[in-house]
Amino acid sequence: MGKIILTGDRPTGKLHLGHYVGSLRRRVELQNQGDYDRMFVFMADVQALTDNADNPEKIRQNIIEVALDYLSAGLDPQKCTLYIQSQIPELAELTTFLMNLVSVSRVQRNPTVKTEIKMRNFEANIPMGFFAYPVSQAADIAAFKATTVPAGEDQEPMLELTRELVRRFNQVYAPVLVEPNIMLPENATARRLPGTDGKEKMSKSLGNCIYLSDDADTVWKKVKTMYTDPTHLNISDPGHVEGNAVFTYLDAFSTDEDFAEFWPEFKSLDELKVAYTAGGIGDMKCKKLLNSVLNKMLEPIRARRHEYEQDIPEIYNILKKGSLDAREVAAKTMDEVRAAMQINYFEDEALIQSQAERFKQK
Amino acid sequence: MGKIILTGDRPTGKLHLGHYVGSLRRRVELQNQGDYDRMFVFMADVQALTDNADNPEKIRQNIIEVALDYLSAGLDPQKCTLYIQSQIPELAELTTFLMNLVSVSRVQRNPTVKTEIKMRNFEANIPMGFFAYPVSQAADIAAFKATTVPAGEDQEPMLELTRELVRRFNQVYAPVLVEPNIMLPENATARRLPGTDGKEKMSKSLGNCIYLSDDADTVWKKVKTMYTDPTHLNISDPGHVEGNAVFTYLDAFSTDEDFAEFWPEFKSLDELKVAYTAGGIGDMKCKKLLNSVLNKMLEPIRARRHEYEQDIPEIYNILKKGSLDAREVAAKTMDEVRAAMQINYFEDEALIQSQAERFKQK
Repeated sequence: MGKIILTGDRPTGKLHLGHYVGSLRRRVELQNQGDYDRMFVFMADVQALTDNADNPEKIRQNIIEVALDYLSAGLDPQKCTLYIQSQIPELAELTTFLMNLVSVSRVQRNPTVKTEIKMRNFEANIPMGFFAYPVSQAADIAAFKATTVPAGEDQEPMLELTRELVRRFNQVYAPVLVEPNIMLPENATARRLPGTDGKEKMSKSLGNCIYLSDDADTVWKKVKTMYTDPTHLNISDPGHVEGNAVFTYLDAFSTDEDFAEFWPEFKSLDELKVAYTAGGIGDMKCKKLLNSVLNKMLEPIRARRHEYEQDIPEIYNILKKGSLDAREVAAKTMDEVRAAMQINYFEDEALIQSQAERFKQK
Repeated sequence: MGKIILTGDRPTGKLHLGHYVGSLRRRVELQNQGDYDRMFVFMADVQALTDNADNPEKIRQNIIEVALDYLSAGLDPQKCTLYIQSQIPELAELTTFLMNLVSVSRVQRNPTVKTEIKMRNFEANIPMGFFAYPVSQAADIAAFKATTVPAGEDQEPMLELTRELVRRFNQVYAPVLVEPNIMLPENATARRLPGTDGKEKMSKSLGNCIYLSDDADTVWKKVKTMYTDPTHLNISDPGHVEGNAVFTYLDAFSTDEDFAEFWPEFKSLDELKVAYTAGGIGDMKCKKLLNSVLNKMLEPIRARRHEYEQDIPEIYNILKKGSLDAREVAAKTMDEVRAAMQINYFEDEALIQSQAERFKQK
């Protein structure tokens, strides 16, 4: 049994730099390193519906956006299987069976669920579907026998529940499912990119995102107004890089080559930081550097996006083909799951024979 | 749209007289009256797994028992569709979508769920699957667009939730699903048959059941020891018919013809009751009457059962065919459900075209 990578996103909005640095860039690297047997990347529309049940249109519109973001960022349907969760009904079936192996209170204790429930202000009106999504997420992973789930630390409790459910299934029925491991981001800057306003997280509702699909003008508009260091009033004042969004972004995206190309006065970000901290470096110059760095990175993504946008029906074809391929894998797992649970009555010749004999002997 | 009848049982044990008088006899009547467009009767193995997750063998063994009980009691696969729940994975898919339309607290308030949870002594360890089963039951009904669900009064809150979910689905997406009505038992005796020990309910764990498959000796052994009237010590003592299990059973099963045949001294049960109440009628004579009545009813059921037992593989064929037929109906509903939810992306030419134009205009 080889290495199977699985990740996905809720298609509730276009992907932004936070997604890119937190997961998408890594996925493309993993894909291109080729050190895996199969890689699945999916759009979790069923999960998105758990708290957007009355707005499927939002999800419909964003599926194509996220697909374009995936392809433009470098995910290659020849190397990884791109699919839409709702097209794999086997996931619902597995969820049903896994739900019997976990208690309500165990799901309630999950800190990720607690946080998410708080974030959404559901209070007493948590939709059942949302409440059950940790189990559905376990099914998403287990149906593909994924071994490796690239995700942030905040997802660790979800993966832990998945492992518990896999272990419990294998122990109660037969060893069919596979325990997945989380693959954490390699470094701190990849873990969480703040918004352009310096707030902890990029979030569409806060309007503090730079999208992968933003054009150069839009990026510059957003970078120009980025949160820096409120105590850095004059260029000559000493600046602070901690909590300074421009520097956090430079940490995440800039390379020494970028300095050679855009600001040769400094060899590296470290040198710039020393100078900024000492005083004498203006925020605007730093923002211009960041803008150049971002555009250099985003330009090929934009170009590919423009190309893909010319043939939207082909994007749907790619997703349809990926969904069919993914469904085949999940269906095979479900055949094994049903056999393990011994609910494949009609295929079970031994059962039919033994029952026939039991009644003959009566 | 016509009348569609749907009912089922958890295959966790052989069916007993309580099932027969409470639902099975009625189903056979409904089937033979033919006043419906389609009738579905199913074995709820997936639901049985919600509180028997670690014992699928029990369910496997009982599927054939319940199927034999159904066929022997007179359900006719030419007239009604007999199927096994787990063979219709579309039900899990619909459950997933309906779960987004109801809150955790709404499910928790359901009195049937409350009672069932209490009965099972789950305490803090209610399996998620068990907790969600009212939604899964709504999907069982809605997937077949059932209009009519013959069931006991205790199921009314479940049907109410089903209607709520159907209304909510139709309102949020499109009017695809159908609100079902409960069809209550016609008379009080059909509502709940006590155990042979006089306890409120026949229950396998209490050992107080007479099974449809019991042979004549077994039935007599059970009837002989039935609970009657503890104050009726001598034949000459006045007897009580209230709470006297023998009379409750006679209420449920005996006819005036039975009296003509087995105890012509009385024209009807009412006459016997008067005499018993006045004193002078022995319990054993009443039990012999009940035994005759039961055997007269059970004999043709036993004969059919014996016949069906000779060809067990054919029973599995009947269930397989029924399951395939049922699946076709549920799959058609799910196509409509997905279209209503607009998650049938690949079939939605209008979506693909409008997206293609949206990106061309950019």
